[in-house]
Amino acid sequence: MSEVKKVVLAYSGGLDTSVILKWLQDTYQCEIVTFTADIGQGEELEPARAKALKFGIKPEHIYIDDLREEFVRDFVFPMFRANTIYEGEYLLGTSIARPLIAKRQIEIARAVKADAVSHGATGKGNDQVRFELGYYALEPGIKVVAPWREWDLLSREKLLAYAEKAGIPIEMKHKQGGAPYSMDANLLHISYEGRHLEDPKAEAEESMWRWTVAPEAAPDTPEYLDVEFEQGDIVALNGKRMTPAEVLTELNKLGGKHGIGRLDLVENRYVGMKSRGCYETPGGTIMLRAHRAIESITLDREVAHLKDDLMPRYASLIYNGYWWSPERKALQVLIDHTQQAVNGWVRLKLYKGNVYTIARDSKNTLFDQTIATFDDDGGAYDQADAGGFIKLNALRMRIAENARRKRG
Amino acid sequence: MSEVKKVVLAYSGGLDTSVILKWLQDTYQCEIVTFTADIGQGEELEPARAKALKFGIKPEHIYIDDLREEFVRDFVFPMFRANTIYEGEYLLGTSIARPLIAKRQIEIARAVKADAVSHGATGKGNDQVRFELGYYALEPGIKVVAPWREWDLLSREKLLAYAEKAGIPIEMKHKQGGAPYSMDANLLHISYEGRHLEDPKAEAEESMWRWTVAPEAAPDTPEYLDVEFEQGDIVALNGKRMTPAEVLTELNKLGGKHGIGRLDLVENRYVGMKSRGCYETPGGTIMLRAHRAIESITLDREVAHLKDDLMPRYASLIYNGYWWSPERKALQVLIDHTQQAVNGWVRLKLYKGNVYTIARDSKNTLFDQTIATFDDDGGAYDQADAGGFIKLNALRMRIAENARRKRG
Amino acid sequence: MSEVKKVVLAYSGGLDTSVILKWLQDTYQCEIVTFTADIGQGEELEPARAKALKFGIKPEHIYIDDLREEFVRDFVFPMFRANTIYEGEYLLGTSIARPLIAKRQIEIARAVKADAVSHGATGKGNDQVRFELGYYALEPGIKVVAPWREWDLLSREKLLAYAEKAGIPIEMKHKQGGAPYSMDANLLHISYEGRHLEDPKAEAEESMWRWTVAPEAAPDTPEYLDVEFEQGDIVALNGKRMTPAEVLTELNKLGGKHGIGRLDLVENRYVGMKSRGCYETPGGTIMLRAHRAIESITLDREVAHLKDDLMPRYASLIYNGYWWSPERKALQVLIDHTQQAVNGWVRLKLYKGNVYTIARDSKNTLFDQTIATFDDDGGAYDQADAGGFIKLNALRMRIAENARRKRG
Amino acid sequence: MSEVKKVVLAYSGGLDTSVILKWLQDTYQCEIVTFTADIGQGEELEPARAKALKFGIKPEHIYIDDLREEFVRDFVFPMFRANTIYEGEYLLGTSIARPLIAKRQIEIARAVKADAVSHGATGKGNDQVRFELGYYALEPGIKVVAPWREWDLLSREKLLAYAEKAGIPIEMKHKQGGAPYSMDANLLHISYEGRHLEDPKAEAEESMWRWTVAPEAAPDTPEYLDVEFEQGDIVALNGKRMTPAEVLTELNKLGGKHGIGRLDLVENRYVGMKSRGCYETPGGTIMLRAHRAIESITLDREVAHLKDDLMPRYASLIYNGYWWSPERKALQVLIDHTQQAVNGWVRLKLYKGNVYTIARDSKNTLFDQTIATFDDDGGAYDQADAGGFIKLNALRMRIAENARRKRG
Repeated sequence: MSEVKKVVLAYSGGLDTSVILKWLQDTYQCEIVTFTADIGQGEELEPARAKALKFGIKPEHIYIDDLREEFVRDFVFPMFRANTIYEGEYLLGTSIARPLIAKRQIEIARAVKADAVSHGATGKGNDQVRFELGYYALEPGIKVVAPWREWDLLSREKLLAYAEKAGIPIEMKHKQGGAPYSMDANLLHISYEGRHLEDPKAEAEESMWRWTVAPEAAPDTPEYLDVEFEQGDIVALNGKRMTPAEVLTELNKLGGKHGIGRLDLVENRYVGMKSRGCYETPGGTIMLRAHRAIESITLDREVAHLKDDLMPRYASLIYNGYWWSPERKALQVLIDHTQQAVNGWVRLKLYKGNVYTIARDSKNTLFDQTIATFDDDGGAYDQADAGGFIKLNALRMRIAENARRKRG
Repeated sequence: MSEVKKVVLAYSGGLDTSVILKWLQDTYQCEIVTFTADIGQGEELEPARAKALKFGIKPEHIYIDDLREEFVRDFVFPMFRANTIYEGEYLLGTSIARPLIAKRQIEIARAVKADAVSHGATGKGNDQVRFELGYYALEPGIKVVAPWREWDLLSREKLLAYAEKAGIPIEMKHKQGGAPYSMDANLLHISYEGRHLEDPKAEAEESMWRWTVAPEAAPDTPEYLDVEFEQGDIVALNGKRMTPAEVLTELNKLGGKHGIGRLDLVENRYVGMKSRGCYETPGGTIMLRAHRAIESITLDREVAHLKDDLMPRYASLIYNGYWWSPERKALQVLIDHTQQAVNGWVRLKLYKGNVYTIARDSKNTLFDQTIATFDDDGGAYDQADAGGFIKLNALRMRIAENARRKRG
Repeated sequence: MSEVKKVVLAYSGGLDTSVILKWLQDTYQCEIVTFTADIGQGEELEPARAKALKFGIKPEHIYIDDLREEFVRDFVFPMFRANTIYEGEYLLGTSIARPLIAKRQIEIARAVKADAVSHGATGKGNDQVRFELGYYALEPGIKVVAPWREWDLLSREKLLAYAEKAGIPIEMKHKQGGAPYSMDANLLHISYEGRHLEDPKAEAEESMWRWTVAPEAAPDTPEYLDVEFEQGDIVALNGKRMTPAEVLTELNKLGGKHGIGRLDLVENRYVGMKSRGCYETPGGTIMLRAHRAIESITLDREVAHLKDDLMPRYASLIYNGYWWSPERKALQVLIDHTQQAVNGWVRLKLYKGNVYTIARDSKNTLFDQTIATFDDDGGAYDQADAGGFIKLNALRMRIAENARRKRG
Repeated sequence: MSEVKKVVLAYSGGLDTSVILKWLQDTYQCEIVTFTADIGQGEELEPARAKALKFGIKPEHIYIDDLREEFVRDFVFPMFRANTIYEGEYLLGTSIARPLIAKRQIEIARAVKADAVSHGATGKGNDQVRFELGYYALEPGIKVVAPWREWDLLSREKLLAYAEKAGIPIEMKHKQGGAPYSMDANLLHISYEGRHLEDPKAEAEESMWRWTVAPEAAPDTPEYLDVEFEQGDIVALNGKRMTPAEVLTELNKLGGKHGIGRLDLVENRYVGMKSRGCYETPGGTIMLRAHRAIESITLDREVAHLKDDLMPRYASLIYNGYWWSPERKALQVLIDHTQQAVNGWVRLKLYKGNVYTIARDSKNTLFDQTIATFDDDGGAYDQADAGGFIKLNALRMRIAENARRKRG
């Protein structure tokens, strides 16, 4: 255990990071700077300040930042330009928030001349990797304190006992009924892990879901939604221009209302194990569908396929915590380049868990009705060309089969 | 125009291929062999026989085959083992049927010693490519007659006039209201193109959809479905063992009832244009979700990612008509190899257009609850290992940032 | 055959394009604009002017351009930034010149208001595709005249007879000994096809090679060469700053002297057949080795691997004629982005066909001697980290093997 | 430090592993089983037995195995079927031997009921990863002792002091002139790292190279070599049938004589640092060239390209130590499948460091001289087909450019 003088802690104000705060004070006798970010998790932040003060944190060492616009503009939107999905289903809601927190933590560490940073992620999960790869990439000499990998408070009981001894107030929910779900929330999603989800053959309880109504409880009439894109990003909903965070907030509201974006899956963690998680990503689910639709008329076929081929790799980079890596940046340069003409309008229909694309248009459309028509196109396309096209594409297979037969 | 003596025509018995039959007789004065396949399109086949006889086709030259089991077992199932989706959304319902028809047509051509084959696909579409790449790959010296690329009946009016003159009965629907949708159906899907779908910003009419009820009209209570997999293929539904075609038929029934599998998209054709299509793939949509779920607990992470990386390429091969190519076969060998342990059970919930995975289990599960747990795992996993894991993964980025700073 | 009023012909002044020139006049009765480019093929260009005048081409319709700098700067160098090799061996010498010629031809067509362009590539080769994809991408409405696909002069004899009749002077070499090799030359390479190379089991004659001495005849003492890179491009040789074309000219001289860059291979053409070609790429062979070496110390591992993964696709795009496609441009944006820090110096040893990298250095080096050393590194790297790194990377395989054993 | 009862040590008999043997005895007080393999490193193995006996190892605990045939047949040959190269240049000579040693070590551990294995690889290199991923994949519960990550003998001096104290004889070369190169040898290659190679801008000394003569000292006359392939593997040289190990031994002899296969590079280690190494791979260099040549006439274009696209990933898997992973095996299944028709004959010319392909033939050739010819092919290929081929391939680019212009 190396010496630590001043540490910037990613502090939510909740039970776990409060215990960490105390444990850092006890264990390292170091000065602590708390950092609490609003990335849309939907919780009050000011209570975190009050709690930090109680622990004796100096007022000038308490950072509370509203990062919602930056989060959507510089992290969520760039990721959605690639139609990013991990393992065919997961929209990477947790993964995409970590690099922003790491970046801001390092900025604060520089500002307050801290020699270390700390986070509350466990030693079995992906988040520790995402945080720490970010720290090291941005500030290679920083010390990292990961209490869950160091301390012995590995059971719920020990943690609560430590909290009690330290005088940290424990809400009723923590005292009763065993451990809660392990949850993570931000403007893109809320996730649930742990408890009986640890058995992949057990169905999730309806009471678990927090952001979306059950599809069964969603309105019986569909709602239409017009989405406007500029360079691959949504800039307006139903004709109303909005900032990135406003867009996602509104999409979450709409998606939540219509029961959109629930997901229950088993995923492969970077640290080598499978884990079961449930996710609600109402706005993101709508956004992905809409982005695919606008690209379908504005992207060249081969560019679209190139993006599709690279997407799983890009998704893994984000999932595994390599947002700040040079390879993610290189891919982003390509992805962003392809979005120049991804402008236009998509109409969606939202209904009880479904998002349907029903119409799309763009001044940059590559859809050519003259050529696509089943009616006589007046010579725009010469059908005879197809014969030569097919013959040359078949040539290598014909030669091979002929050769096979000659050999007998 | 080369000489043709005997041609095997893919004959549906409908208006278009009847005109083709007559046109082949008129134009090539050749003998004609008709081939009509049941691949689950849901139409009576015997009327095709009657029509063929009326055109003077010899009884022994009329082939009517039930290919439903072969279709699902040897084409649909292998494709779904790869979780195949074209351009992020399309389940390749049309594409996957063509290679089977091409294969059977060539088998018949050999049996009857025909020197040519013919099909009713237009010169603008993908299907001509899929048919003909199949023909050439399997029988490199075969002659191909593609009437739509040769004749001058390019408008609906001319076609109807030709039919009328030839005494081909025209149903009322063809006479009224302009051209119908261009449709294609088989056990995997039904598709719609043309008419007002040619305008991508026009919503499809509700009356167009044939296989699924509107989600709004689907039952108000969800239905649970248990799916059993062996080596990546579904072998039983709700505990009842079934053949491949039975599985897909039943899934279509269930999916159709719950309004599952509607899709409206603009896709990129191999021949170079964008085209708008609507699809209903009720059973396939359920199957894809279930297959992802069973793989999530039975496939190794890196094998799953390898499959995901290769999937778009595999999908393009099928979309573009390269089913019989050596590269598709090479990929299939890899894909099939990965499915050995993809055995087990998935529980789904079907509700108004949605398919939710809610539970999964397998004797081959790689999900290890001891390690995945948030509770104390009794030493199954050493959290300290994660520190070294992260540090070495970060090393190249730290070195780079340090080097950058040294340069100043 | 559509009407043509004014056509820009890629005109070398040689026998074949002279016959084409005459044939265009005879066949289309159109006005002809000749375009002759110096891309380093090593031939006098002024004779082309004299010949064109003789055919009655107006002086203002004779374009002779020195494109050598543009060729190397905007085509060869960008391609080498990707370490581009087609099918493991071919450095794409012919492929990379075609897009430039197509571009310039279209520029001239616009300047002289021509409605068509024409080239002398045959109907079996890749070059027709490369030229015409370029034409169509840059000027979608242009007419293309490809005489080799239209005329009946398909044998050498017919071509010579036509030339004779047209009073086109035929050099002795053409009259004697059958067809010459089909050759193509530019600053990057010279290629040979045809004649007895059409038998892949026949060794090429030593007399065929034109640019390089036989390794056996190369100097008996090695020569050292220092190469300086900026952003992935060579900017100086042995300390002397040079323009791109000067660099490649000098490298060709050095490579030729040392017998470097000979290649004999069978390649897969885009049009579907295999073809045997011999290539001399002296400068390019040196350049590739040097570029790999400078990247080895300046590129991040994962960025280098990303480039390696994409390279074959990028190579195929160029080989197949898609230089002007949006997907090639998208890849180029990524590739160029990665070259920002590819600066520095490489020392090579040239000797009888070999190019050895023997030393390399860079102010942007990512090689960290402190960490790489076998000696005690004073704590720069904690060897214990490797234990955790390995354990977590092994975890999924351990879980799988344990699960397999439990099943028994 | 966990308890160890019986450990199987990969024991070369050299200084380092002798110190390890003693250190294991001192530190763990455990029983030791030594395993010494002949994988073609070219050293006597019996001295290892004598040394082991001196340390008190029981005779039945001394394993000395000749693994040369297995090494080439089951590891080297399969790898070369993929034309495997890491980072564009490295033939993976060290990487490919480790999985075999790991496998054999585990087999012995099972036979002698050992609870642990140990190796002499350092904590900074790739080999520790390759050994241990193999151990864990094959025997998930095995204990691994990696002395270099545990002990404090991190400098050369400390190591020698320990040896001296332990009575381990130290050869003169170790006493003088500092540390030797870190070398690794097997039938595929010999490698050098460390010493002044740690400075990437320092040229390697001529005296370092052991297996190949300097190209300058190689014979002045070229030597021709005929290579025969069956299913992608070499089975005969100059008409003489040989076992796999005989093939590679003979190729090494020939390559060494002609100065073939020297390489000096900076590579990216899996553990995150760059490292400079020199390699001699005489036989492998010949083999790669020959394999590319035989594939050039026997593999379908798209299959070859698929292999090329996957190769860097396959190479990284081997480099990083994932030979025993399910994803390497899945790729191998695909690769092996493609080699069925890779049969035939290649003629090479060896001369002063160069390997030239000069001829190739196969009963499975896909080279069709009728179609490839520049002469009139009598209609085997219809040049007019190329027009349609190009037009449809250009269509999407023409539509895009037209759309761009319409927008203005």
